[in-house]
Amino acid sequence: MKIEIDTGRIVAEIEELAAISDAEAPAVTRVVFTSTDVKARAWLEGRCAEVGLIVRQDPVGNIFARWSGTDPSLPAVGTGSHIDAIPNAGKYDGVVGVLGGLEAIRSLQRSGLRPRHSLELLMFTAEEPTRFGIGCLGSRMLSGSLAPPAAQELRDGDGASLDEARERAGIVGDLGAVELPLGYYKAFVELHIEQGALLELQGIPLGVVTNIAAPASLRISIEGEGGHAGAVLMEGRRDALCAAAELILAIEKAAQDSPAADTVATVGMCDVFPGAVNSIPSRVRLTADIRDTSLERRDQIIRIIGSAAKLIAETRHVSIQCELLNADAPATCATSVVEALSQSCRKHNFGFLPMVSRAYHDTLFMSRIVPAGMLFIPCRNGYSHRPDEYASPEDIGRGALVLAETLAVLA
Amino acid sequence: MKIEIDTGRIVAEIEELAAISDAEAPAVTRVVFTSTDVKARAWLEGRCAEVGLIVRQDPVGNIFARWSGTDPSLPAVGTGSHIDAIPNAGKYDGVVGVLGGLEAIRSLQRSGLRPRHSLELLMFTAEEPTRFGIGCLGSRMLSGSLAPPAAQELRDGDGASLDEARERAGIVGDLGAVELPLGYYKAFVELHIEQGALLELQGIPLGVVTNIAAPASLRISIEGEGGHAGAVLMEGRRDALCAAAELILAIEKAAQDSPAADTVATVGMCDVFPGAVNSIPSRVRLTADIRDTSLERRDQIIRIIGSAAKLIAETRHVSIQCELLNADAPATCATSVVEALSQSCRKHNFGFLPMVSRAYHDTLFMSRIVPAGMLFIPCRNGYSHRPDEYASPEDIGRGALVLAETLAVLA
Repeated sequence: MKIEIDTGRIVAEIEELAAISDAEAPAVTRVVFTSTDVKARAWLEGRCAEVGLIVRQDPVGNIFARWSGTDPSLPAVGTGSHIDAIPNAGKYDGVVGVLGGLEAIRSLQRSGLRPRHSLELLMFTAEEPTRFGIGCLGSRMLSGSLAPPAAQELRDGDGASLDEARERAGIVGDLGAVELPLGYYKAFVELHIEQGALLELQGIPLGVVTNIAAPASLRISIEGEGGHAGAVLMEGRRDALCAAAELILAIEKAAQDSPAADTVATVGMCDVFPGAVNSIPSRVRLTADIRDTSLERRDQIIRIIGSAAKLIAETRHVSIQCELLNADAPATCATSVVEALSQSCRKHNFGFLPMVSRAYHDTLFMSRIVPAGMLFIPCRNGYSHRPDEYASPEDIGRGALVLAETLAVLA
Repeated sequence: MKIEIDTGRIVAEIEELAAISDAEAPAVTRVVFTSTDVKARAWLEGRCAEVGLIVRQDPVGNIFARWSGTDPSLPAVGTGSHIDAIPNAGKYDGVVGVLGGLEAIRSLQRSGLRPRHSLELLMFTAEEPTRFGIGCLGSRMLSGSLAPPAAQELRDGDGASLDEARERAGIVGDLGAVELPLGYYKAFVELHIEQGALLELQGIPLGVVTNIAAPASLRISIEGEGGHAGAVLMEGRRDALCAAAELILAIEKAAQDSPAADTVATVGMCDVFPGAVNSIPSRVRLTADIRDTSLERRDQIIRIIGSAAKLIAETRHVSIQCELLNADAPATCATSVVEALSQSCRKHNFGFLPMVSRAYHDTLFMSRIVPAGMLFIPCRNGYSHRPDEYASPEDIGRGALVLAETLAVLA
């Protein structure tokens, strides 16, 4: 009845999945509904099917792989994460939770344990906002936080709708069938790399998440006036990029001036039109990502950005539109899950830190419909969303073991 | 012997050429060596051939269309401009000089005049720096200002070399054959829209250019450190886009603070890597375009930008590389051409303004090897490099008439 994790197998599978990528190794790029994403999904379904899990995919592409419990009529216990990756990312973000979750289930199969509740591995569609500008697409829809009509309004950078994009990936069906019925899960646990350096700095091998920070994102459009870079004098200019530059610095300052170190704000995209050496920019599109553990502080930053945009628009005679793409509330993890995770850590004498997740996760949305929690493992230097993202085999194995035991306790 | 311009024909030809474009009308996009550029070249060659001009194309794609004089052994008198257009540009920039030049030659053919010197219409390759990051590619090489080995080092945004790009467009031959032999031309005159609002504001229909401003361009690479937008606190960030924003504003300020209104500086491109909503920018590439009528003042701005970059790099712990792509000297127009243009204006009682060209033209390079000058016509609101660029038929016809008479006098 002893649970043993095959860490080598997880690591080998992480490498196999990393090879399904649109970027040159060690970088990983795997954007939702691309042919690369479709390949990765098929590969994952194969890994689940070979250990007897029953695999299904819902109309938005969430994948469920179930190991039936002794009483299949009971609500399942879920675990999982995502496998999509932003451009030029690493191998571990999301993937550790999916492949670590798979190995956790396999370790329970091997142990001879047969839980009463079914265990279900989840692969959430598009946790990353790369394609549709909104994060956690799959878990938002599962939890009823994004209604099908609103989802159908989403467009990618090329103007393709969600329906067009998923259909091209061979994923069809009524989006109305995605939302999970009440009581579908008994609990949900997500294993993830920390994406920060707290655990590493304090030399603590595990983090038990108690809260998830409140993320928000803005799409900002600036319209100025173009013209020839040589012929239009400085005096009469309404340069959209100069206005954008002021706003980028105002956004940075708003976060820096916050009384809490937890406040972060990032402009990650800056598209310039027409984008020629000798042309004054007439239009710029920015995105801003703002997060905080406090909803109040975060919304205050959004207000400061709005005021800065208004002032810059007036001073520079440009027009600035700020569109709030999403502004989710922070989540509190369920005591039952936090306790189960903590007890498993204590049992093995693994040090653990109760901590806040400053990054965004599918658990944020799952926690709205099911008692949910998260387990963090360290990642080197806190690096994430970059090719040199790294988690050690030891940390991955330790995380999978605590996850397996927690699933066993909950199920 | 009266010279009469068929303005309707020029305007109709401007419209025909505008339809050969990669942008939706009224915008025009025609980047050198694309299939659209190849189509436009063939169209122009057809227009030249149908009036008996002898057409040739040199190995960098400059097109020459000659009407032989009564003494073909004498150096020719040249006129012309370019037909390439930056993304989302208008119909008139360059095109007025090529099609106005063609009509000027046709009007002389119709008048029964037969000049002693041959007249040659020129269509210069890639006056716009869009593709290879360097303006006036064709006239630079014609004038020996860009040697073939340096030209072969040029790469477009996709990494294609000049040789690869021109060969794909069906343009072959030894680049060493492009430079014109000494004394090839007796004089060169370029008709162009002003790309500024001076003529319109003063109600003067023609501008006789006496000097061309000195342009320079920089390619700036900023390397910071990427990471997850949620997980990396503000404190330790080395955000390449925030550094870029400071530099963009420093470049604007350097030009604004110049003692001369003629000083302009523009950041026209800002490419962000990896360019995801939730990723801290690790790398940004900017271009800066700096111009002045004084070489000294312009070079002072370049030095100020270099110092600002150094300071920002130190303060933000990022690396900033500024590469000077080109820094050409200003040009003075030849007295003989300025006089011929002015006399034609006076003869018709057309008001004209002796003026400085703040935009960049092929004449800048032609003036290094031949007595050269330029004639400007007004463009509405001074707009250029944008879809609503406009010059009236009346102004175009007036410009072509003065050009035709000037060519007749010079030839």
